Amino acid sequence: MNRIKIAQLYADADAFAGKTVTVAGWVKSVRDMKNFGFVTLNDGSCFKDLQVVMDRSSLESYDEIAHQNVAAALVAEGTLKLTPDAPQPFELAAASIRVEGPSAPDYPLQKKRATVEFLRTQQHLRPRTNLFRAVFRIRSVAAGSIHCFFQDRGFIYVHTPIITASDCEGAGEMFRVTTIDPACPPLVSVEAAAASEGALTAGEVDWSADFFGKPASLTVSGQLNAENFAMAFGDVYTFGPTFRAENSNTARHAAEFWMVEPEIAFADLEDNMELAEAMLKYVITDVMERCPDELAMLNKFVDKGLIERLTHVAASDFARVTYTEAVDILLAAQAAGRIFEYPVEWGIDLQTEHERYLTEEHFGCPTFVTDYPAAIKAFYMRLNDDGRTVAAMDCLVPGIGEIVGGSQREERLEVLERRIAELDMEAEEYRAYLDLRRFGTCSHAGFGLGFERLVMYLTGVSNIRDVIPHPRTVGNAEF
Amino acid sequence: MNRIKIAQLYADADAFAGKTVTVAGWVKSVRDMKNFGFVTLNDGSCFKDLQVVMDRSSLESYDEIAHQNVAAALVAEGTLKLTPDAPQPFELAAASIRVEGPSAPDYPLQKKRATVEFLRTQQHLRPRTNLFRAVFRIRSVAAGSIHCFFQDRGFIYVHTPIITASDCEGAGEMFRVTTIDPACPPLVSVEAAAASEGALTAGEVDWSADFFGKPASLTVSGQLNAENFAMAFGDVYTFGPTFRAENSNTARHAAEFWMVEPEIAFADLEDNMELAEAMLKYVITDVMERCPDELAMLNKFVDKGLIERLTHVAASDFARVTYTEAVDILLAAQAAGRIFEYPVEWGIDLQTEHERYLTEEHFGCPTFVTDYPAAIKAFYMRLNDDGRTVAAMDCLVPGIGEIVGGSQREERLEVLERRIAELDMEAEEYRAYLDLRRFGTCSHAGFGLGFERLVMYLTGVSNIRDVIPHPRTVGNAEF
Repeated sequence: MNRIKIAQLYADADAFAGKTVTVAGWVKSVRDMKNFGFVTLNDGSCFKDLQVVMDRSSLESYDEIAHQNVAAALVAEGTLKLTPDAPQPFELAAASIRVEGPSAPDYPLQKKRATVEFLRTQQHLRPRTNLFRAVFRIRSVAAGSIHCFFQDRGFIYVHTPIITASDCEGAGEMFRVTTIDPACPPLVSVEAAAASEGALTAGEVDWSADFFGKPASLTVSGQLNAENFAMAFGDVYTFGPTFRAENSNTARHAAEFWMVEPEIAFADLEDNMELAEAMLKYVITDVMERCPDELAMLNKFVDKGLIERLTHVAASDFARVTYTEAVDILLAAQAAGRIFEYPVEWGIDLQTEHERYLTEEHFGCPTFVTDYPAAIKAFYMRLNDDGRTVAAMDCLVPGIGEIVGGSQREERLEVLERRIAELDMEAEEYRAYLDLRRFGTCSHAGFGLGFERLVMYLTGVSNIRDVIPHPRTVGNAEF
Repeated sequence: MNRIKIAQLYADADAFAGKTVTVAGWVKSVRDMKNFGFVTLNDGSCFKDLQVVMDRSSLESYDEIAHQNVAAALVAEGTLKLTPDAPQPFELAAASIRVEGPSAPDYPLQKKRATVEFLRTQQHLRPRTNLFRAVFRIRSVAAGSIHCFFQDRGFIYVHTPIITASDCEGAGEMFRVTTIDPACPPLVSVEAAAASEGALTAGEVDWSADFFGKPASLTVSGQLNAENFAMAFGDVYTFGPTFRAENSNTARHAAEFWMVEPEIAFADLEDNMELAEAMLKYVITDVMERCPDELAMLNKFVDKGLIERLTHVAASDFARVTYTEAVDILLAAQAAGRIFEYPVEWGIDLQTEHERYLTEEHFGCPTFVTDYPAAIKAFYMRLNDDGRTVAAMDCLVPGIGEIVGGSQREERLEVLERRIAELDMEAEEYRAYLDLRRFGTCSHAGFGLGFERLVMYLTGVSNIRDVIPHPRTVGNAEF
């Protein structure tokens, strides 16, 4: 079929004016005015619709088309007419329209506005609504943007493994990946237990019989693997799914979500912040340029401050503050009467209420908080000279809280070994990670961007379930 | 650190000639000639190395550097000198060199050539070798290329779910994703079994107590989910990890691999083949343009026909043949004395030996085989008018076999319902999929590209374990 996409018509209307074109798309509405009729058609190639005009006197299928239900698939041929005086810049004067696939009166998404909660039960159909059409195009454009940003800068995209047999990050609960049937798991025999010299206990599940010969889980982060590649390629990034088996049913948590994790060699925390800020601004600018119709709709119906906020962020410098300074700011606010649910003192992990106070009220812009207490951060973060903080950074943004978390990594073998021992971790489990410090270690840094949080930030949508095509949360894995 | 990457030097040597620059990278070799010394440095920014020249009379750290082990991380400052008469176009005359991180004599990858089998045990270090440096850059460039190809054409990138509670494709064995402990799984109680009216049996594993409230698995394909989005956006693609729990230990199978799955609306099998051919040529051309040094090395040491083959494929039309014609070709070869391990007859699934005969010997170029017997293909493929074949297509390439598999999808509700009933599948499980046929169905098509097979094709590397950063296969989930 030699069809023209509606996006092409909008991109170059003058070139098509007066010409015969064929379009194919889905009905958003049909109005039958007796002698004339109007079909609003969308083909998904852009946010805008095409108005198709039917003339009863010349269109053979007029009655058939006039009776189509919302969502019917049509193929229309006709002449593109510029309409400089009408709300839309052009319309298609139909010479013929045929029904490719009808719809039905029980189509669940009729014109009346549906709630997002209802639409979550219709995940196979919701991308056809204006809201989700906007969200999922922005999600796609932002993902493309991230790849361009890193590829243009010579970063190597590394597909770090999804299935992992190590729990290196120890971040939250993990999903088990297995082929063992829990109804009749293989068990360690008395003989095997005896032969193992105490390593195995008879009657326990025999993980050596599982697919990978040991227990395996879904990854929570590709960072440690990415470091392997940063020590060879210098600048690398991952962009893939990560998982948390946390039993938390909030608007910001999903069991499956995508993360972007760059890792850069011969670099420190300052380089890391510059990279994160440049990346966020690049993506925001790109989305504003490529999705103006989507943003206009979201700005109108979802978040009235959206475009202003994005414009401001793309143009202004991010604030930077150390954890210790941030705590002082929060303590001052507390002293001035501000009530926080979690009282502030040096050493606590910042809660969302604290993060949002800092970025929304105090600074009013994206804010890097750096140099957190070592005790509340991961083992691999580089110890500062004060001996009690690490070279960590979180980037907080208004409306969301933490969107980026990262650090300079501990590149000193002896400091890292000491830290692993202090935390009672198994050094043997980290042999490869320690090898990187034995053979040509260098200062390096990286961060993780929660991609869904970025999409929420870009769209103003407040529930993570509404920025994921088919979200997975506790108790939910539909579609 | 205001360092210059080695790639920048090669990109614009004239601009840096005679200037002082700082570079940082890892030692590939050090030669001490008593009064002069040479360090070969690589920083991962490109395949090429930088030669750093040390003059004992002026370089303070001469002795320290001359004794560094392979893989030490160095930071060198000096003057870039063009060397038009030498094998390399320029060298760095070092004014100062400092050791960022030393290496050690027991560094596992010394200059002597290591086998790929040994290097699989050193996955954290192998990206530092020439072979893996080439493979993983090509992997990254090819992945970036695929995103560009689809994004430039207006396709929407859809992150289809990795965790799935449906086994829609039924393709191969799946990994279970669970938080149930097989040592003490929750069991259905006698009361719950009684209340379920026969749906549950007392003493069975109670899946309602699992994280998602039902059994869940790792996806084998994003296609059915991608179709949801194609019916809204027209053209979409996925690019993400997929999984098979198959107990097959071959050079071509991994338990975790990445797939690219475009899905296009208002399109038939012909459009689908055109898309696959255009995509493959685009990626090949892009990799040839952006990775000439990597390909030259692979062509020299891994696969002597590589560059010639890629050049040929990028420029020539793919062959197209129906399954029925392909079987006739194979029967003729058989009649002429060709021995196949699996005898050929109409109705069989083509084996790798058949595929390779067709693409390597008969056609000598990538070959689309179309219109396979319905009985050996998936339920969702569109039934042809002959009633016994479906509008499927596989793209076979020399050296690999099948690299792309796809089809036009069955868009006719009644035909699809009949097929689901014939195969004794649960129609209720496919409610959403059938809804797409109820509400604005249209002809559409798509395919899956096995990304690792593409990387094998692009690099000439014959084992899938050597094109995945950290491969997962039966019995193996190291690193």
